[in-house]
Amino acid sequence: MKKALKEAKKAYKKGEVPIGAVIVHNGKIIAKAHNLREKARKATAHAEILAIEKANKKLKSWRLDTCTMYVTIEPCPMCAGAIIQSRMKQVIYGAKEYKTGAHQSITNLFDKPFNHKVEVLDGIMEEECGKIITSFFKKLRTK
Amino acid sequence: MKKALKEAKKAYKKGEVPIGAVIVHNGKIIAKAHNLREKARKATAHAEILAIEKANKKLKSWRLDTCTMYVTIEPCPMCAGAIIQSRMKQVIYGAKEYKTGAHQSITNLFDKPFNHKVEVLDGIMEEECGKIITSFFKKLRTK
Repeated sequence: MKKALKEAKKAYKKGEVPIGAVIVHNGKIIAKAHNLREKARKATAHAEILAIEKANKKLKSWRLDTCTMYVTIEPCPMCAGAIIQSRMKQVIYGAKEYKTGAHQSITNLFDKPFNHKVEVLDGIMEEECGKIITSFFKKLRTK
Repeated sequence: MKKALKEAKKAYKKGEVPIGAVIVHNGKIIAKAHNLREKARKATAHAEILAIEKANKKLKSWRLDTCTMYVTIEPCPMCAGAIIQSRMKQVIYGAKEYKTGAHQSITNLFDKPFNHKVEVLDGIMEEECGKIITSFFKKLRTK
């Protein structure tokens, strides 16, 4: 999660909502990404989507059923959906996202009867992961 | 929807689940795409995601709030989430997807309290849009 947080910090410096994600396969990080929606002008350029696409490329497969994703914030429906679509084994996240979160906040997509079940673990380094977001929006409002 | 169905047929020929999408802006088609998950080896390469990314590029913006998407099948959570994330004005789809659909089948993401509401219209050219999928899986099982 420290590596995911490092990715979030990169997003922060670029003026992007600071969210970071890494994907681990066989104990090694195979993908790292951070939110790039504004810079990339892409609605889909969330950290999780970019990390999944990098991991797909690395493993030459759309299936990530032997992988674990670490992400600083509770995934939104698009990202939770992509995690399920990629058959990810496990997702571990930090802080809740009360406005868009698709694990506990707005809905629980991981609990729906899809043909793949993802193991979800939340609250890991919750404080640090949440703090960087709060600080980002506080700074934005001051501007 | 005829153009979206034409995209679905392209996917069919490539051995991909035949789903197609187009995005219309000011009465003109600005993006066309079809499912490419297998060929692209990308979990995110659904017709809707690829069409959104093309439209983002075309309009040089992640916001598609003046656009309408036509898609042959009820979007999955990833795609429904991406439609909401892109602030799409309207989505018009053909046939239901009973196993993964995120409008009526498994869940209704469009009805959740997100800060953007998408207008959804379903059942347009439902029979044709559904038929090509049924025929694809029938052929697959025969093989």
